[in-house]
Amino acid sequence: MPGDPNRPIQSNISRNKLHMRHIKPGATIGILGGGQLGRMLAMAAARLGLQCHVFTPEPDACALQVVPRRTVASFSDKAALRRFASDCDVITYEFENVPAETAALLASRKPLFPDPRVLKTTQDRLIEKNFLQALGIATAPFAPVETAAELNQEIDSMGLPAILKTRRFGYDGKGQALIRNRKDVAPAWQRLGGRPCLLEGFVKFEREISVIVARGRDGKAICFDVTENKHRHHILQMSLVPARIPQQIDAKARRIAFRIANAFDYVGVLAVEMFVVRNARGRTLLVNEIAPRVHNSGHWTIDGASASQFEQHIRAVAGWPLSKPIRHGTIRMENLIGLEPDTSSKRLAAPGTALHLYGKVAARPGRKMGHVTTIVRVAR
Amino acid sequence: MPGDPNRPIQSNISRNKLHMRHIKPGATIGILGGGQLGRMLAMAAARLGLQCHVFTPEPDACALQVVPRRTVASFSDKAALRRFASDCDVITYEFENVPAETAALLASRKPLFPDPRVLKTTQDRLIEKNFLQALGIATAPFAPVETAAELNQEIDSMGLPAILKTRRFGYDGKGQALIRNRKDVAPAWQRLGGRPCLLEGFVKFEREISVIVARGRDGKAICFDVTENKHRHHILQMSLVPARIPQQIDAKARRIAFRIANAFDYVGVLAVEMFVVRNARGRTLLVNEIAPRVHNSGHWTIDGASASQFEQHIRAVAGWPLSKPIRHGTIRMENLIGLEPDTSSKRLAAPGTALHLYGKVAARPGRKMGHVTTIVRVAR
Repeated sequence: MPGDPNRPIQSNISRNKLHMRHIKPGATIGILGGGQLGRMLAMAAARLGLQCHVFTPEPDACALQVVPRRTVASFSDKAALRRFASDCDVITYEFENVPAETAALLASRKPLFPDPRVLKTTQDRLIEKNFLQALGIATAPFAPVETAAELNQEIDSMGLPAILKTRRFGYDGKGQALIRNRKDVAPAWQRLGGRPCLLEGFVKFEREISVIVARGRDGKAICFDVTENKHRHHILQMSLVPARIPQQIDAKARRIAFRIANAFDYVGVLAVEMFVVRNARGRTLLVNEIAPRVHNSGHWTIDGASASQFEQHIRAVAGWPLSKPIRHGTIRMENLIGLEPDTSSKRLAAPGTALHLYGKVAARPGRKMGHVTTIVRVAR
Repeated sequence: MPGDPNRPIQSNISRNKLHMRHIKPGATIGILGGGQLGRMLAMAAARLGLQCHVFTPEPDACALQVVPRRTVASFSDKAALRRFASDCDVITYEFENVPAETAALLASRKPLFPDPRVLKTTQDRLIEKNFLQALGIATAPFAPVETAAELNQEIDSMGLPAILKTRRFGYDGKGQALIRNRKDVAPAWQRLGGRPCLLEGFVKFEREISVIVARGRDGKAICFDVTENKHRHHILQMSLVPARIPQQIDAKARRIAFRIANAFDYVGVLAVEMFVVRNARGRTLLVNEIAPRVHNSGHWTIDGASASQFEQHIRAVAGWPLSKPIRHGTIRMENLIGLEPDTSSKRLAAPGTALHLYGKVAARPGRKMGHVTTIVRVAR
């Protein structure tokens, strides 16, 4: 455990980058990943006069529709990665599961933000939880499990319900199994076991919230107003801003996000998902997950604030000053999931409503097709 | 003169289009012209899940940086125009000087909005002025002049100062000469004569304002809040919203914009520039110019309202319902003209400030490189 949890733990790596020159308008930002996050990053970059080159293995990736240059290749295609790097002035990513070798190759050729070492922590739930614990940040109880016997042992000591999660490659509820009672243990292990897992105590939360924090190359960090989130089947359905939480919980949530960003010596946008838990002594916060990227719960910032999470991320990786966003009112963001959007609906014409569609070719159950942001009440 | 100035004057042409089906998400909008207006139209289309194909003669046109498909060819290249049309579901334009033959060829193959007949009116200052007069809308005094003798005659009757303008191809002060006294007459005629011209009486205005109105295929029209504009050397420097005008002048300005849009049976976004003139009997409005397109004085809508002029235009040409925009406060928009933008400036970090750079390769005197929008006061 470091003596001061606010002390950057990777100061050696990024000391040089802090002093690196910012890129100029007209420069090219490389984006690894071609989903809607990459798409909205590229659109934010375009507003600022920056160009983007998207690298994705998917030929019909929706981010390709908004950029002039593209590489469609595997993340293990070293020649393609080298060509991509040579075309970019700085590189970033839209998803946290960038393979370590891909990140290392790119980082050896061009500045890569956020620093790939962040991925090492956030790609593995156990390392992430240990990292949080070392910073003195509360989480749900957790224990690594590698065998069925270990799973049963940990259940004995932790109790039920609990959640079995694979340590790696989980998002939107993928790689998770809820264990309510002893009958659920064997099927859960059958489904997820064989890979290193983590058992987490089930948290009965009052609310789910998230903090989107942006941190520049100069170490200055700014967070958006705390967001309240509602999930269904582990997929974000709705965000509401500001979160309906007491002022001291709001302040604590921001402090936690800043502490994490500082500890990583982070450059870019980072999302921290938290549970608000109410017990006999009042309310407390548990960190659920860190996403080292722009985040679905920050989509409201495009229409609900004077600068979006995407713009903040681009400014940070470009070495430009961050914006101080002003929120436009009480904001609601709803995801459009798994359906062909109805563009003739009355909702489109509702005052203060903004529709975003991601240009995805086919609607599939659970697939995020777009989102709708509504300014519920104008700022006072 | 039509009996009812609100009656569409081109009802025959667009009757069919009114009932045409709206395009679907994923469809392609063709944009003629590759400047910043086309760029921002394409970015607005992308938010809505629509793709754009830009047609421009300029290989380094800045709109090409944000679209996946492009045609770089002359507007008289019929084969290129046909290929372009076949790739698009609907076509629009970002500038009013689209050649009539280009528009006719495209309109014969795909829906083209706004209707090219609008261009016939707005490409010629004399036809435009006559059109406004026929609608009962006041303008500065004007008279066509084709010879030096006619020019002198008209000056005799109109008085000085006056402005000599070419009838066609004028924007940002191009094709204009101010005639303050008799000494200015010969140089003005030498510079502009030989082409059909218009002499306009010089208007001493209190303010310049503009109204940006959007009109859908169903004939529903919505305008943004009236904008106050400041020009320098005929180029827009600054817009302020709301305009500092009395309520009845504000209402009158909107009525004028609606009347013009209805008379054209217009589909898309239209800008009407007006002078607020103060005389002994109070304030009155004179229409200076109609721009049948998105307009620089509407750039504030991107960050200052819940839907931008670009989105309204795209919704209109797509056959989608228009948005009812909410303004986020008192808004100031400043153009960045002729200079390399300074991205390290303090202005970038100012609260509520949004920077837009157009990705233009070279800064030249008078060239619009970007704009900055500031939310001066938050809406109450």
